[in-house]
Amino acid sequence: MDVRTASREELLALKEELTARYEECCAKNLKLDMSRGKPGADQLNLSEGILTALSKNEDAIFEGTDLRNYGGLDGIPACKALFAEVLGLKPENILIGGNASLTMMYDNIMRLWVFGDCNGNTPWSKLDKVKFLCPVPGYDRHFAICQQLGIEMINIPMHDDGPDMDMIEKLVSEDASIKGIWCVPKYSNPTGAVYSDEVVRRFAALKPAAADFKIMWDNAYCVHHLTDDKIQIPNIFELAKEYGNEDMIFQFASTSKITYPGAGVACLSASVKNIAWVKNILKVQAIGPDKLNQARHVVFFKNAAGIAAHMEKHRAILAPKFQMVLDMLEKNLGGTGAGSWLSPKGGYFISFDSFPGCASRIYELCKNAGVVITDAGATYPYGKDPEDKNLRIAPSYPPVEELKAAMEVFCVCAHLAAVEKLLG
Amino acid sequence: MDVRTASREELLALKEELTARYEECCAKNLKLDMSRGKPGADQLNLSEGILTALSKNEDAIFEGTDLRNYGGLDGIPACKALFAEVLGLKPENILIGGNASLTMMYDNIMRLWVFGDCNGNTPWSKLDKVKFLCPVPGYDRHFAICQQLGIEMINIPMHDDGPDMDMIEKLVSEDASIKGIWCVPKYSNPTGAVYSDEVVRRFAALKPAAADFKIMWDNAYCVHHLTDDKIQIPNIFELAKEYGNEDMIFQFASTSKITYPGAGVACLSASVKNIAWVKNILKVQAIGPDKLNQARHVVFFKNAAGIAAHMEKHRAILAPKFQMVLDMLEKNLGGTGAGSWLSPKGGYFISFDSFPGCASRIYELCKNAGVVITDAGATYPYGKDPEDKNLRIAPSYPPVEELKAAMEVFCVCAHLAAVEKLLG
Repeated sequence: MDVRTASREELLALKEELTARYEECCAKNLKLDMSRGKPGADQLNLSEGILTALSKNEDAIFEGTDLRNYGGLDGIPACKALFAEVLGLKPENILIGGNASLTMMYDNIMRLWVFGDCNGNTPWSKLDKVKFLCPVPGYDRHFAICQQLGIEMINIPMHDDGPDMDMIEKLVSEDASIKGIWCVPKYSNPTGAVYSDEVVRRFAALKPAAADFKIMWDNAYCVHHLTDDKIQIPNIFELAKEYGNEDMIFQFASTSKITYPGAGVACLSASVKNIAWVKNILKVQAIGPDKLNQARHVVFFKNAAGIAAHMEKHRAILAPKFQMVLDMLEKNLGGTGAGSWLSPKGGYFISFDSFPGCASRIYELCKNAGVVITDAGATYPYGKDPEDKNLRIAPSYPPVEELKAAMEVFCVCAHLAAVEKLLG
Repeated sequence: MDVRTASREELLALKEELTARYEECCAKNLKLDMSRGKPGADQLNLSEGILTALSKNEDAIFEGTDLRNYGGLDGIPACKALFAEVLGLKPENILIGGNASLTMMYDNIMRLWVFGDCNGNTPWSKLDKVKFLCPVPGYDRHFAICQQLGIEMINIPMHDDGPDMDMIEKLVSEDASIKGIWCVPKYSNPTGAVYSDEVVRRFAALKPAAADFKIMWDNAYCVHHLTDDKIQIPNIFELAKEYGNEDMIFQFASTSKITYPGAGVACLSASVKNIAWVKNILKVQAIGPDKLNQARHVVFFKNAAGIAAHMEKHRAILAPKFQMVLDMLEKNLGGTGAGSWLSPKGGYFISFDSFPGCASRIYELCKNAGVVITDAGATYPYGKDPEDKNLRIAPSYPPVEELKAAMEVFCVCAHLAAVEKLLG
């Protein structure tokens, strides 16, 4: 029964039924978490070999360099080469960081904020107004960086093939206070959308009014496939060369969801000119990131093929979890009109659009039944989802049976919230 | 013979002799480096056990937390407890970072620069003028942070018991644009000076005109003793409590010269209010530093006594190197008037004051003979030593025989430079 076309009587009966089921859920005293895109313990166990990849003093002398000592501001050559191969770039375009690409993104925005870009443009902190474009729904930690600095965020609708490029092209060409955009081009957080070839090309070809417009290209899920359709997107740097736009792009990646979120290696990639700009500022902030951990990753994976093989093992664990969530949604909410969702081919999330105006209520209902999901609104700048409908489901962390229990609760809550809303 | 009282004829003869010896040095085609305070390979080998401190999946579940996953913004409890014990503080005063305390210092200055301090004072970037006090000679990387931000640096003379407190008290009480000071309170870089109890108390009791004056207390060598006289300095936080000055102090430490400079753990310590202030900003920049490496350190050391025992092994390697440098200086330059030096009880450096106006020349002479020492001027803000006399000798890295060869060259160069200067 589609709630949108049901009679008031039907809705009242349905409410009674769903309320009873919800109370049953609550009685189970569940404590389940689908809130963050955390790998499960079985996924983390896949990287056990990394712990002993370097086990003796001699192992720390790597390609002639004692990695235990100072130095290596931009990373060890072998680790740069590894990321370069994965990303289709040259090592000269790579700068290795510490445990988190988030920190590399934040620090990069800070450099632009305090010092200005590689072409000597005015530091953003000295401007009256700085704006950023934010495809929505998107990643809350991107938005938090802008919010902390008082950068005004403008929502850009996401489509299946990427953000609304007509809107982006128009806005950036007209408003020089728009200084950048956050992008997750592949298996986007949270919708799973993959930017089409055309979208990537249009990004590479942008003609912003701001000379210091920057694309923050967070390629967090570059090798994180969930199906046999291992989607490749164009190399934006190659395309940008055609338009003289290489300095406009900063790309980020990490091994957080390849090896360990708590002990991985992050990477910034950019034009040679931008890498030099970063290093010139970074040399005052740092001496060099953890080099042993870089070498552990190199020894463990050897090359991009090693990473790809490892990601197949992740997929074998993750794909059934995603399937479970999708099956539960279809079984419990299919045809009810109480929500819609996408089936991603990679990444870490399933994006759920509830009946409009119900996301906060679903979050509350779930929470009270012991199921934590990502905050309603989190996928929007300032935590404000204008339609209060998007929720991000993170299937990776709970074991599959817990996930099933959590999704049972979620579906009851989503259904009930829609009925409540319609009953007014 | 003291060059300062020698006749012109004596100096000319000495010059001839020293020039001949210098040319012999050059003919050896040496390639020796005493430029940075890098531990030697034998020191790094002491920490081999840390490589396998965590070797199985189960090891990563530490005190109930899976350290491989996300989280732990301020560090794992056991690592906070370890640093707290070493520093005589509570875990609530500790925030763990990544590989380098330098980055924690830089980021802390950046927070003050962009956001203002914990009491809501104006961000320093919005002020017309910001000044910092810099005890000299001091650490070049501290000065580089100020220079990058355009913070004006004011030289403060260092004495045997710390910087000139009369001058500091006067300056900070009169000038509200003076926002901070860099301190290495124990086994100072480069003089080895240890702040006396009175100096530490006077710091704790400062009454700056600036409400947001901050002491950057870089306790880099807190456990790095070279003699049986294991000097302890007062806990500045305890003293500061008496004066209501707890929020004025940020202390930094790391395991860079305990385990590995290239894969250590850093630590910021501060008042509870300041820790909350840091975390509130940091939560947007980071998810958490490498937790596995924190646990490796905890497993390897267990407690402060474990660190102290480990530092004895470092001392056994380092003390003979320092002694070699001091012996060579005494043997070759004692009584010549061509320079003076201090005998540190800890730390990583021997500070050498040449005959005035000779430091740059000594650097050049050494370099041309294949011996690299820290740049002349590096121990002063802007790289400008007003008397061009201070040089920093770093005895730790070269094997002791190489160190002897390098010091032979150094002494000839220092002697020759003084003679040249006197001959005009």
